[in-house]
Amino acid sequence: MDQRVTLKELARLLNVSISTVSKALNDSPEISPQTRKRVKELAALNHYVPNMLAQNLKTKHTRTIGVIIPAILPHFFAEALHGIETKASELGYRIIICISNESIQKEAESVQTLIKGQVDGLIMSLSQETQAKTEIGHLQPIFSHKVPLVLFDRVLNQIECDKVHINDSLQAEQATMALFNSGCKKIAYFSGISDTSVDDERKKGYLEAVKNLGGSRKVVKFDPRDFPDEKLKKLIETRKIDGILASDELSAILVMKSALNSGFEIPEDLSVIGFTNGIMSEHFRPSLSTVDQHAEQQGKLALETMVDRIEGKLPEEYVEYKLETSIIHRKSTRGKVPQLTD
Amino acid sequence: MDQRVTLKELARLLNVSISTVSKALNDSPEISPQTRKRVKELAALNHYVPNMLAQNLKTKHTRTIGVIIPAILPHFFAEALHGIETKASELGYRIIICISNESIQKEAESVQTLIKGQVDGLIMSLSQETQAKTEIGHLQPIFSHKVPLVLFDRVLNQIECDKVHINDSLQAEQATMALFNSGCKKIAYFSGISDTSVDDERKKGYLEAVKNLGGSRKVVKFDPRDFPDEKLKKLIETRKIDGILASDELSAILVMKSALNSGFEIPEDLSVIGFTNGIMSEHFRPSLSTVDQHAEQQGKLALETMVDRIEGKLPEEYVEYKLETSIIHRKSTRGKVPQLTD
Repeated sequence: MDQRVTLKELARLLNVSISTVSKALNDSPEISPQTRKRVKELAALNHYVPNMLAQNLKTKHTRTIGVIIPAILPHFFAEALHGIETKASELGYRIIICISNESIQKEAESVQTLIKGQVDGLIMSLSQETQAKTEIGHLQPIFSHKVPLVLFDRVLNQIECDKVHINDSLQAEQATMALFNSGCKKIAYFSGISDTSVDDERKKGYLEAVKNLGGSRKVVKFDPRDFPDEKLKKLIETRKIDGILASDELSAILVMKSALNSGFEIPEDLSVIGFTNGIMSEHFRPSLSTVDQHAEQQGKLALETMVDRIEGKLPEEYVEYKLETSIIHRKSTRGKVPQLTD
Repeated sequence: MDQRVTLKELARLLNVSISTVSKALNDSPEISPQTRKRVKELAALNHYVPNMLAQNLKTKHTRTIGVIIPAILPHFFAEALHGIETKASELGYRIIICISNESIQKEAESVQTLIKGQVDGLIMSLSQETQAKTEIGHLQPIFSHKVPLVLFDRVLNQIECDKVHINDSLQAEQATMALFNSGCKKIAYFSGISDTSVDDERKKGYLEAVKNLGGSRKVVKFDPRDFPDEKLKKLIETRKIDGILASDELSAILVMKSALNSGFEIPEDLSVIGFTNGIMSEHFRPSLSTVDQHAEQQGKLALETMVDRIEGKLPEEYVEYKLETSIIHRKSTRGKVPQLTD
């Protein structure tokens, strides 16, 4: 790594001043087109890489945006990243990504790494630990260095910045109503995720809908590595539930597998709606009706918001986008589930 | 971003020289413990971030490794990244990730971004376009700047560097033999991916096995967005095939869905083995027997190899690891599929 051709070496090879080489590479009109061409050719021949580090010290703009996501395995984040990447390419920005592994410490390190790397802005979805402890001290360097921040999906009210997320509680409420309208009378909320803002919001929306419907509430928390098959079986057998709103895609798939393995029919004995429209929802048999969280769209909007903020196109007050979601009606629900939005 | 506290400002606030501040922050024994403490406290209070850019100009070591993957949506790459990230954390390295979106141009840009960002090394899995065209000119800056490179999964023989991958052709051959030994006599290879080195290798292994078994070969290429349901139905109905080795997880799921939807039983009418042990393989009904590609393990080994290379623990000649794989026996194959490895 120590062998990069420097401006000085290029200048010596061309027998011109360093300043001439620098200006030629930056297309300065002070330098004749012939010289510019000659300098650029030699630079290309020698694989000259402009020293961004030194450049950054002057210009402070990198057209690079840092992205910190809590985990890479859930399909939601892979899709959101795909959206961020696609939109960044389109707008002429690069992204570099760090993973916080749901931990405050790794999130803090990632913030440091990316700020040091001189990104123009940071797009983050918060770690589970950060959300559970509502601890934000480790994010302080972002604010003290005035690095623009956009939070998406997993946000915290306490943090003042631009935000992109979906109205989880409203959508959970509407999904519960959709199950009711398709014929379910005893609807439970099954959650395999906890301590995240999205789970809290979805449960809140479910409880609100059940209250409005005058039904009884049933919330079941479980560990995805150890699904409570017997409990679910008994609840269906004794007709205590006929519909389930699941907290996320994997939870919904686990609910369906368990019910099918116990000999029940979906959607006849049990209707299921999940959140997140991942690849499993589409390919499972029966396919899963889901609240589409528009992961890719969230990613794209987060990136656009960031670029608008960097380029001074937004008002001084922070913006907050709550995306409308819609239900994708597949085969795990009876009849037609009413569409929430167009 | 222009408001970071500088060494100069810290020096002024403390009424000492810049050099004293710098030495104190770097724990130089030239500075008294009291002064070191005082400097560090003030630096922390003002959220001082050491200017890595300036630092790098001197030390050239960042303990940061760049990773370029071709796509983020396939579960294999999410899992491999998870492995890279986990191992990097363990060894005290950070990773920053770029996505090439299967394109040579984006791959070239990612290389430039990460080299400019002064990573200590690059871990890459090549884009489909790079592999299809066997074009490597855009990787030249890596070699001219002597940045250590480790390729994983999607590699090219032409590139001289450390490599981590699995022996795809041997494993495909053994998976075909396993289908044969479980009772299948007419085995086809179905591929929904093409122009990748892994597809070529898997097809080669399949063809080798069929030749050794004296059977007839049947290779079906298809577009995953438009699965040839009628063709598969006819092949099974007319008893032209009773076993399928699929090129990847999604292809295997599409094969199973199509066969089940046409009213066939799995594994009675058709046995299926896929590659890549993702989340769909585990949760589909019936669950899918797969050749485990150890995505996470490939990621971990790639990162370890990189760190060993950076830290001078490897011989000068490049190393090439071909991981052993194993078959995960689930419910899409008859009886017990013989284990390939322990």
